[in-house]
Amino acid sequence: MSRKERHDTVEERKELTLDNVYKANYVLKNVVRQTDVLYAPKLKPGVELYLKTENLQVTGSFKVRGAYYKMSKLSEKEREKGVIACSAGNHAQGVALAAQKNGIKAVICLPDGAPISKVEATKSYGAEICLVEGVYDDAYQKALQLRDEEGYTFIHPFDDPDVIAGQGTIALELAEQVPDMDAVIVPIGGGGLISGMAYTLKSLNPNVKVYGVQASGAPSMLNSIHDSHIERLDSVRTIADGIAVKEPGSLTYDLCSKYVDEIVTVTDDEISAAILALMEQHKLVTEGAGAVAVAAAMFGKVDLKGKKTVCLLSGGNIDVTILSRVIARGLLMSGRSCQLNIELVDKPGQLLKVSRIIAEQGGNVTSVHHERSNEGSDVNGCYLRVTLETRNFEHIENIKKALTDVGIKII
Amino acid sequence: MSRKERHDTVEERKELTLDNVYKANYVLKNVVRQTDVLYAPKLKPGVELYLKTENLQVTGSFKVRGAYYKMSKLSEKEREKGVIACSAGNHAQGVALAAQKNGIKAVICLPDGAPISKVEATKSYGAEICLVEGVYDDAYQKALQLRDEEGYTFIHPFDDPDVIAGQGTIALELAEQVPDMDAVIVPIGGGGLISGMAYTLKSLNPNVKVYGVQASGAPSMLNSIHDSHIERLDSVRTIADGIAVKEPGSLTYDLCSKYVDEIVTVTDDEISAAILALMEQHKLVTEGAGAVAVAAAMFGKVDLKGKKTVCLLSGGNIDVTILSRVIARGLLMSGRSCQLNIELVDKPGQLLKVSRIIAEQGGNVTSVHHERSNEGSDVNGCYLRVTLETRNFEHIENIKKALTDVGIKII
Repeated sequence: MSRKERHDTVEERKELTLDNVYKANYVLKNVVRQTDVLYAPKLKPGVELYLKTENLQVTGSFKVRGAYYKMSKLSEKEREKGVIACSAGNHAQGVALAAQKNGIKAVICLPDGAPISKVEATKSYGAEICLVEGVYDDAYQKALQLRDEEGYTFIHPFDDPDVIAGQGTIALELAEQVPDMDAVIVPIGGGGLISGMAYTLKSLNPNVKVYGVQASGAPSMLNSIHDSHIERLDSVRTIADGIAVKEPGSLTYDLCSKYVDEIVTVTDDEISAAILALMEQHKLVTEGAGAVAVAAAMFGKVDLKGKKTVCLLSGGNIDVTILSRVIARGLLMSGRSCQLNIELVDKPGQLLKVSRIIAEQGGNVTSVHHERSNEGSDVNGCYLRVTLETRNFEHIENIKKALTDVGIKII
Repeated sequence: MSRKERHDTVEERKELTLDNVYKANYVLKNVVRQTDVLYAPKLKPGVELYLKTENLQVTGSFKVRGAYYKMSKLSEKEREKGVIACSAGNHAQGVALAAQKNGIKAVICLPDGAPISKVEATKSYGAEICLVEGVYDDAYQKALQLRDEEGYTFIHPFDDPDVIAGQGTIALELAEQVPDMDAVIVPIGGGGLISGMAYTLKSLNPNVKVYGVQASGAPSMLNSIHDSHIERLDSVRTIADGIAVKEPGSLTYDLCSKYVDEIVTVTDDEISAAILALMEQHKLVTEGAGAVAVAAAMFGKVDLKGKKTVCLLSGGNIDVTILSRVIARGLLMSGRSCQLNIELVDKPGQLLKVSRIIAEQGGNVTSVHHERSNEGSDVNGCYLRVTLETRNFEHIENIKKALTDVGIKII
């Protein structure tokens, strides 16, 4: 009996069934991690919150589940030809690892501006990289062209019943890990993850609420469901690049329409706050898309009162340069860092005076920019820009007061 | 039968036994998380490496294990009086949470310069904070004074057989999670964690190698064992504040002498590299002390060839301001950011020219500092300091070459 006959029937390939999700769960057992669920009562005081840590999944996101299951169902002939995908992110790494574990050749088309770190990660799983001049859409066209020319199987990132069944296995794990959950909050990009989870959870227990979260700069599923037909956004703009999708799939649109209770959006600032909270309070690195469920909970986008709630952390593949910026912004926003612009009289000892006062107040200077000015109010004036580590807003006010008390002018 | 009689015998209080560790494991079952073990084959290519994620433990470190178990064995009278500890870090939070869960009053003495974030975290578990003017030693003296005056029980951070037994429960979990491990690598500060783990592992299987890691700026246990008697360091200096301990305990010194195979040290740069690798590759936030085991593995401090090895990530309570600096340093060290100091002729269009070339080369400018100079070689000269996000060292060289090719002078 061939592998195809074992794993597959014609019916299963056409639609999503609970059987298919259970089969995916069996197939994935020794491939993916059953990621931990962590109790997180402090993220939203008053709400019994849990985190499903798919950011700790192999490849750093849940995507490997759907990709692997999809590939496990290919025929011998399809396996021999290999697979192709188009992605600069988590799907690329998921497909690459799944192909490696299945012993299948994988080609990944990426736009040539893709971050080097993601290209390297994908390469490291043994995939062949095809850099395409242009943007995502160009890479996508190239992937379809290669599929037709070379006979590769195209692995869709979300609009495929097997891919969706693979993502649905997270819901089966949750049903074991938090059997009495009342609600889950799940990120939505193309909708594959939430389709699989909502279908599975509602099949097992229709009372579980399933909330979807999109970035406010990429509300494609929200708009489509609101207007009752699939709509394409002209552009998307969000730090949550993993869910910056212009158009939902047709299968995922149908499943979300049917099984998702509510879709809400979160802003980049809210996402940044969630990323920072997860790092500080739970020692978890999440990417923008990975933190939107927590952002929705933290900022009260859905009514969670009395509900035992699981937030799905979908991935952790964030560039550390972006993470640095998120931290820097979070520190400014919470009063733990500040920048003071000071106008000084240009005479000896002024810098010393400012430094001494800041030190006395317990501020920690991290950078100083000092220069004579041509445009200031005083021809003898000079400017000092000091960046400080501070304890909180009160601390900042105390430092400012101590400076102005001795006649130093803060602009 | 009183709680004391149930949990305790005179013998158990005096010395560490495997029984005591098993009892601790039972007592801690519903208090601590059985933290996950994650496979990490890429951190040290060629070594089968696993991570025991005690940074994901409640309170963000393993310390709650020992503190809770110690408190569970107090007599009714001791419980009524309450406990006292001295710490600005993980022990403080561990004691605070353990006291809260045991329904015991806890007083934590801290030096008044302690980071506000740690003070707040300790407060959040309901402990009473006693800020003491001065440094750690002053806070310690104050704690002993309050113990004597108020009758509190002092909870030692490491030199106590019950505390050590509590930390030893990690070894029992590992014996279940990675039954065929050949080696563990464990951070050493005062030595409580490694004493408990080494004693337990060697009791179960003398063939398991136990390696200890200290910061090169705080090698108190290493020096003491080398010289065969307990030595006190005059000063300690490391980013791994959780293991910046001047003097080992007497019990931990004895246990380490007997059960630890080898102690090595790692530098702050090595620790920073490990913190960054754990964030990028495993989406885990670790503090300095929490990353030393991985640093030792990554930089070949111990011979791990052919050994299935577990690195103990002891904690994740790192200040995000420090984390920012670690990331910034890591980016510089890996060519993903760079600072160019450029000397320009002071005439219109120069900044434009530099900006255009950098943009053409795909560099992403994050900050510019531009000023006329008084000290430069050319009276018309001015200086430009540009900070860039780059892909790698080759990318930096390409940008530099493109600039110098058109006559721009990089200093």
